[in-house]
Amino acid sequence: MAQINEHYQKLRAGYLFPEITRRVQAFQEKNRDVKLIRLGIGDVVLPLSPAVVEAFHAAVDEMADPDSFHGYGPEQGHDFLLETILEHDYRARGVTLNKSEIFVSDGSKCDSGNIQEIFGIENKIAVTDPVYPVYVDTNVMAGRTGPINEAGRYEGMVYLPTTKENNFSPALPDEKVDVVYLCSPNNPTGTVFSKSDLKQWVAYAQENETVILFDAAYEAFITEADIPHSIYEIDGADEVAIEFRSFSKTAGFTGTRCAYMVVPEKLTGRNPQGEKVSLNKLWRRRHTTKFNGASYPVQKAAAACYTPAGKEQIQANIAYYLNNARVIREGIASLGLDVYGGVNAPYVWIQLPAGIDSWGFFDKLLNECQVVGTPGAGFGPSGEGYFRLSAFGFAEQIEEAVTRLKNQLSLKA
Amino acid sequence: MAQINEHYQKLRAGYLFPEITRRVQAFQEKNRDVKLIRLGIGDVVLPLSPAVVEAFHAAVDEMADPDSFHGYGPEQGHDFLLETILEHDYRARGVTLNKSEIFVSDGSKCDSGNIQEIFGIENKIAVTDPVYPVYVDTNVMAGRTGPINEAGRYEGMVYLPTTKENNFSPALPDEKVDVVYLCSPNNPTGTVFSKSDLKQWVAYAQENETVILFDAAYEAFITEADIPHSIYEIDGADEVAIEFRSFSKTAGFTGTRCAYMVVPEKLTGRNPQGEKVSLNKLWRRRHTTKFNGASYPVQKAAAACYTPAGKEQIQANIAYYLNNARVIREGIASLGLDVYGGVNAPYVWIQLPAGIDSWGFFDKLLNECQVVGTPGAGFGPSGEGYFRLSAFGFAEQIEEAVTRLKNQLSLKA
Repeated sequence: MAQINEHYQKLRAGYLFPEITRRVQAFQEKNRDVKLIRLGIGDVVLPLSPAVVEAFHAAVDEMADPDSFHGYGPEQGHDFLLETILEHDYRARGVTLNKSEIFVSDGSKCDSGNIQEIFGIENKIAVTDPVYPVYVDTNVMAGRTGPINEAGRYEGMVYLPTTKENNFSPALPDEKVDVVYLCSPNNPTGTVFSKSDLKQWVAYAQENETVILFDAAYEAFITEADIPHSIYEIDGADEVAIEFRSFSKTAGFTGTRCAYMVVPEKLTGRNPQGEKVSLNKLWRRRHTTKFNGASYPVQKAAAACYTPAGKEQIQANIAYYLNNARVIREGIASLGLDVYGGVNAPYVWIQLPAGIDSWGFFDKLLNECQVVGTPGAGFGPSGEGYFRLSAFGFAEQIEEAVTRLKNQLSLKA
Repeated sequence: MAQINEHYQKLRAGYLFPEITRRVQAFQEKNRDVKLIRLGIGDVVLPLSPAVVEAFHAAVDEMADPDSFHGYGPEQGHDFLLETILEHDYRARGVTLNKSEIFVSDGSKCDSGNIQEIFGIENKIAVTDPVYPVYVDTNVMAGRTGPINEAGRYEGMVYLPTTKENNFSPALPDEKVDVVYLCSPNNPTGTVFSKSDLKQWVAYAQENETVILFDAAYEAFITEADIPHSIYEIDGADEVAIEFRSFSKTAGFTGTRCAYMVVPEKLTGRNPQGEKVSLNKLWRRRHTTKFNGASYPVQKAAAACYTPAGKEQIQANIAYYLNNARVIREGIASLGLDVYGGVNAPYVWIQLPAGIDSWGFFDKLLNECQVVGTPGAGFGPSGEGYFRLSAFGFAEQIEEAVTRLKNQLSLKA
C-alpha cells in the first residue's frame, strides 16, 4: 500500500500566486473590458537580446548537422559556459573559483529547491521573513518542520524578521542555526545587504559551522558601488556559502531557462560520525544522478550574455527596468507612503498606511486602479503591512499604473 | 553545525559510467592513435529533424520580439504541447487522458529521480534487476534503504531478477511492495513486456495498492504490433500507474532536453490517517514548487515531433537505429552467443560465455576490438554474465564494430 509523503499535508493550501490568480480572474469576469496592469509576478517583458538570439539560432543550427550535433553534455554544464561565468561573474570582481565549483542548471527555482536534499533532516533551518516561499516549502516537504502555527510560521523553522525596524538587515539568530537562506538583492523587499552585513553573516557561519545559501538571482540590478554582487567577495565565504545565480531576470531567460549554482570545494558539512564531508562532492552526486544537463542551445544563448554586444544589450534592459523602478518609487513616495528597494533591485516594497493589511491593499489596488501587485503577507508574517510592486513591465504601463495610483487610489482603510 | 544527508554515504562509489570513462581514458592514454567505437552510453548521434529545427528557430524568433516573447510559462507545460501529446501519444492508441494529468519537464532522468519525493519514506520499493541506476540511487539518497550488501543490493529494497531464465519478465514479488519501477522497452536488456505481463502487474497493483512507476522512454522503438506502448492500454492502469515519456531517444533530444510524465487523476496513495490522497495533486504541488517549466523554444521544438513531417523524419531516424540494432544482433549471434533485445529497443543484451564476467568482457572488447560497451553488472547483480551494446551510432561505425568483433574477439576466458 503506497504511503504518501505525509509532510506535504503540512503545506499551507492557498499558495501566494495561485491565490492572486484566483482573485484576478474573479475581478476580470465581472469587469471584462477593463485593462489590468500586472506588476505582481516578477516576470520580464523585454525580448531576448539580439546577441543572445543570434547565438541561440547558431546553436540550433549546430543541432541540425551530424558533424556539430550535441547529445548528452556534462551534467554540470559545458566548459564554454563554465569558463565564461568564472571570468565575467567572478574573476572580474576579484573572486577566484574553479570550474568544478560551478553547476549549470535549468533554473534557480530548481536549484534553491533542490539544495536542501544534501543536508540531513535534523538541521535547524533559518529564513528571513518575508521570504521567497520556495526556501520554506521545500524544507517543509522534506520533513524539516512541524505544522504551521496560527502566526503562519512552520514549527522548528527559525524566522528572522526583516523589516523597516532593522533596516531590512536581520539580527543574527539567538539560537544556533545550521543552514540559513539569505537573498540579496532581496526578493521581495528589493533591499540589499552591505559588505558589513555579509561579513557578520560569514563570521557567524564560520563560528557555528552554518552553511549560508546565498541567492543572488538579482545581482545584475545592483547600481550602488559598494554593494557585494557575490558573497565570495567576503573573505572566508568560500568555506561557508553556496551561491545561486540566474539568467532569468538578468537576461530575460524566465521562459528560456538557465541558471547556475556555486558550491565551493572548501565547503563542508558533518556526517553522523562527526567527520567533515565535502558538500561539493555531495552536490555533484545529486546533480549528476537527478539532472541531465541544461539544454545545449540554451547554454550557448546564456554564454552570449557575456560577449561585449550581449553585455551592452543586457545592461540596457536592466537600465530600462531600473528606470521603471524609479518611476514607481517616486510615484509611491509622492502619495506620502514609505517606500524601499527599487534602487538595486527590480522590486519596490511599500509600507502600507496603518489600518490597511496587505491583502486588503491588493483588493483596493485591483478594484480602484486595476493594478495587480503582491501582498507582503504572502511572503511571510513579517511581510504583513507591506506590498510588492514589480518593475518588470513596459515603461508606458508603469507610467500608467503610477498615474492611476495617484488619481484613483484612496488611502483610507 | 550543518549535518549532511547521511544516506549519501551508503551510495556505492564507482558509479557505472564514470568507471567506464576511467577505463577508456586509461586505454586511450596508452593507445593514442586507436580509434574507439563507443557503444556504451545510450546517446543519439543523428541530428534534430528538419521539422524540429524549423520549429525551434521559429520559437527563438518569437523570443526576439516583444509582441511574441514568452516569460514564465505554466510549470506543467504549454497547452499546445499538452494537447499534442494527448492526441498523438494517447488518443491515437485509444487512451483518454486529460491535460491536467500531463507534466512536461526537462528530462526523464529528473522525472524518474524526483517522483519518489511524493512517497513516504517507509514504502517498500521494488526494482527489476538489472535496472536503470537512477531508480535505485534516488531511493537510497532519500533514506528508503539500508547499506549495500556484498551481493551489491541495498538492504530493504526488493530486487526482481529479470534474466533469460524468466524470459526477462520477472515474477511478481513474494512480499507486498508499495512502489515498483518497471521499464519497457527495457534499459538495459532491450526486452519488452507483453500485454499479459502488464495485465498481471496492474492486477497485482490493484490488489496491493501498489503504485507502478512505468518508464516508457523507449516506446518509440517498439516494432511488434501487440506490445503496449503505454501502460494505460491496460484497463485499470490509470488507477495504479505513473508513466514516464521522453523526447530524448525518440527525437534525439538528449542535448535539447524535454520529457513528460503522466500522473492520472484517479491515482491515490494513503496518508498516515489511512485516507486516500490524490497523487496528481501531490505531484502538481511538487512540480510547481521546485520546477519552473521547460524552455519555451524547446517545448515548441518538441511539439513539432508530432507534425506529419516531424513524425516521418523521426520514424526514419528510429528505423536507422533499429537497423543498427539488427546488424549488432545478427553479428553477435553469428559468433555463437545468445542475444536478446534489439527488436523493440535500441539496446542489444548479450549473454556472455561461461567464465567471462561482464567487466572482463568490457576490458576484452576494449583491448581486442577497441569497442566500448556496458557491463551488465553495472546495472545490478543479475546483470552479471550479460553485456549491453547500444545501437545509437552511425551505421558505418556499427558495421565496423561488428566486423572487429567477428575478426578480433577471442571468446575464451
